[in-house]
Amino acid sequence: MAPRDMYIPFNKMHVTKNELSFIDDAIAGGNLAGDGKYSRKCQLFFEESFGFRKCLMTSSCTDALEMAAILIDVEPGDEIIMPAFTFVSTANAFVLRGAKPVFCDSRADHPNMDESLIESLITRRTKAIVVVHYAGMACKMDVIMDIAQRHNLIVIEDAAQAVGSYYINDSGVKHPLGGIGHLGTISFDGQKNVSCGEGGILIVNDEKFVGRAEIVWQKGTNRTAFFRGEVDKYGWVDIGSNFTMSELNAAFLFAQLQNLSQIIQERQSIWETYAEFFRSVEIDLQLPHVPDWSTNNGHIFYLVSQDEQSRTRLLQEMKSQSIGALFHYQNLSKSIMGGENSGSTPLCNRYADCLFRLPLYVGIDTDEMQKRFRAIPLLHQS
Amino acid sequence: MAPRDMYIPFNKMHVTKNELSFIDDAIAGGNLAGDGKYSRKCQLFFEESFGFRKCLMTSSCTDALEMAAILIDVEPGDEIIMPAFTFVSTANAFVLRGAKPVFCDSRADHPNMDESLIESLITRRTKAIVVVHYAGMACKMDVIMDIAQRHNLIVIEDAAQAVGSYYINDSGVKHPLGGIGHLGTISFDGQKNVSCGEGGILIVNDEKFVGRAEIVWQKGTNRTAFFRGEVDKYGWVDIGSNFTMSELNAAFLFAQLQNLSQIIQERQSIWETYAEFFRSVEIDLQLPHVPDWSTNNGHIFYLVSQDEQSRTRLLQEMKSQSIGALFHYQNLSKSIMGGENSGSTPLCNRYADCLFRLPLYVGIDTDEMQKRFRAIPLLHQS
Repeated sequence: MAPRDMYIPFNKMHVTKNELSFIDDAIAGGNLAGDGKYSRKCQLFFEESFGFRKCLMTSSCTDALEMAAILIDVEPGDEIIMPAFTFVSTANAFVLRGAKPVFCDSRADHPNMDESLIESLITRRTKAIVVVHYAGMACKMDVIMDIAQRHNLIVIEDAAQAVGSYYINDSGVKHPLGGIGHLGTISFDGQKNVSCGEGGILIVNDEKFVGRAEIVWQKGTNRTAFFRGEVDKYGWVDIGSNFTMSELNAAFLFAQLQNLSQIIQERQSIWETYAEFFRSVEIDLQLPHVPDWSTNNGHIFYLVSQDEQSRTRLLQEMKSQSIGALFHYQNLSKSIMGGENSGSTPLCNRYADCLFRLPLYVGIDTDEMQKRFRAIPLLHQS
Repeated sequence: MAPRDMYIPFNKMHVTKNELSFIDDAIAGGNLAGDGKYSRKCQLFFEESFGFRKCLMTSSCTDALEMAAILIDVEPGDEIIMPAFTFVSTANAFVLRGAKPVFCDSRADHPNMDESLIESLITRRTKAIVVVHYAGMACKMDVIMDIAQRHNLIVIEDAAQAVGSYYINDSGVKHPLGGIGHLGTISFDGQKNVSCGEGGILIVNDEKFVGRAEIVWQKGTNRTAFFRGEVDKYGWVDIGSNFTMSELNAAFLFAQLQNLSQIIQERQSIWETYAEFFRSVEIDLQLPHVPDWSTNNGHIFYLVSQDEQSRTRLLQEMKSQSIGALFHYQNLSKSIMGGENSGSTPLCNRYADCLFRLPLYVGIDTDEMQKRFRAIPLLHQS
């Protein structure tokens, strides 16, 4: 088949097996509202598989980040340190509560924030550090947790892309991402390793946030305590929103979660095939880096070209081979909303201008992909 | 069958026909993210069936109210007039943006806000009036819109319960609820006439909010304009959140919407059966009132007892007949969060203490219900 006849999209949803039957079961249960049977099954899955203290399913990872911003009592003028190379929701969740995002540059060897820059960004107004584990690879958490402890800051892990990935500390002990900071979040949006279209989870690691997290999740009411018989009637006791996940989404997601290890394994294998190919090309491309302190959940395979023109040419050639390659984030500190905080973030600029991602999903034909890569003159192999 | 053997719940989800096949189709489409095919079908349904200017599906009605609060640029200290007898989300959505809720009492003949009290609550800080169409019955919109116009206030209709219901003006012209104020919202949570577990819609009636609504909906980015080819690339241009609805929810809801008229008709018929029964009982109960200026979408059948003790007795007797009757809202102005604004709301207190709702869903056995009502001594018929 000629490549042009078969477009390879950037992403293709992987349906495992039980999605529809679990949805059918949820419908038969007669109640699709949030905090239902499948929502609790998903929460339990994460609590038991990863040892997270308390999990709450949310309608998106954005919602989980907004819950985190409410829980840490962000006040107008508070500063939140976060990477410049991230999705808008990392910043928006805190800006909605009046915070000022303070953008940290990326590492030279990885788009993740450069932990050595964090202390220089701390002021009297700093309240929290939000780390983003880009491509499911861990930030250097021991260093970051130590900085936070010394400066009395809260750490929130935006582990949107990092389901099933781990930080490995100096002693070789593995900690699941999202479970290290005071709070963590994971995304199940349409492009993630496991998905339900729109969905997320809030991970509460610090005991002191557990009680209030349930209240904020349930529209600022003590409904959960009421149904546990801890209070006589429930009422409006705090700010909050409807952060809960519909049972339709939870049922679909629970089917996906049952195949999480296998999905990650298959994505890793595709990732390795790509890595092997690109290690052998002559053109100067920065390959994705798996830090010593991180596992790889195969979420994103990215490449970083030498300059923006080079990326444009490569993306054009990918397109001519019907490969749906895509660049990723812009530099948030250069956006209309982030512009006030435009410190120097040259490495983030480089990733914004030069990074691009290749199609990667369970079931992709890696032989066909390599055939197409080889048909691109710029990717001549040595 | 003895009543005790068959509990009649307050609510039972009604599944029409195509819910599962539409979900199957959405899954086959390969993308379950928000702003997908079924989300657009739902939006179009509302725009075409009710003539709404612009509709955006949201993950809850709470989310739609939060979008409204962002769109009208609520600032800390702004006052928002709203009923004291409403769900917490009506207040929370605005309190999250720093507003102070100013609670208006109910009418004597209906739990809806008493429009004659609104002007006395207006101050220099008043920004908007949020009306709630309780039980799907219209507030007196001509009077309220006139007050708003004279005082340069925005009107937001919390039509959470009012899908398919209409306001009838003095000339007899019908206007769909949610389509009269500058902005409107409807809920599709698990207890509503049509549902998808958790879901909502923002209705944008005032042209000036349309463009920004799309941006706020898409996490504060101009993504929608980008995909329409109106801008070169999209970025972070405003505050916002992930307010979109997953395709799983939208597909389920779209199946329900295709049966909206029939569902409303069947609920109205159950409502009328109840009304007829309770018109004939000797005990002094306030029956639900359908104002001259409102249609009835059969969403809630409520009764108001003479005092709280009487309600407790009636609820106990309902329980002894295995009828899942339920009271409703507490007075928000008396809650921990609303306590600062505790003006006098005696009628709201009455509805909070004395109103209760009977089970009402498509497929309920009204003969059996009447049999059980007749078995309650307090409901002796004249």
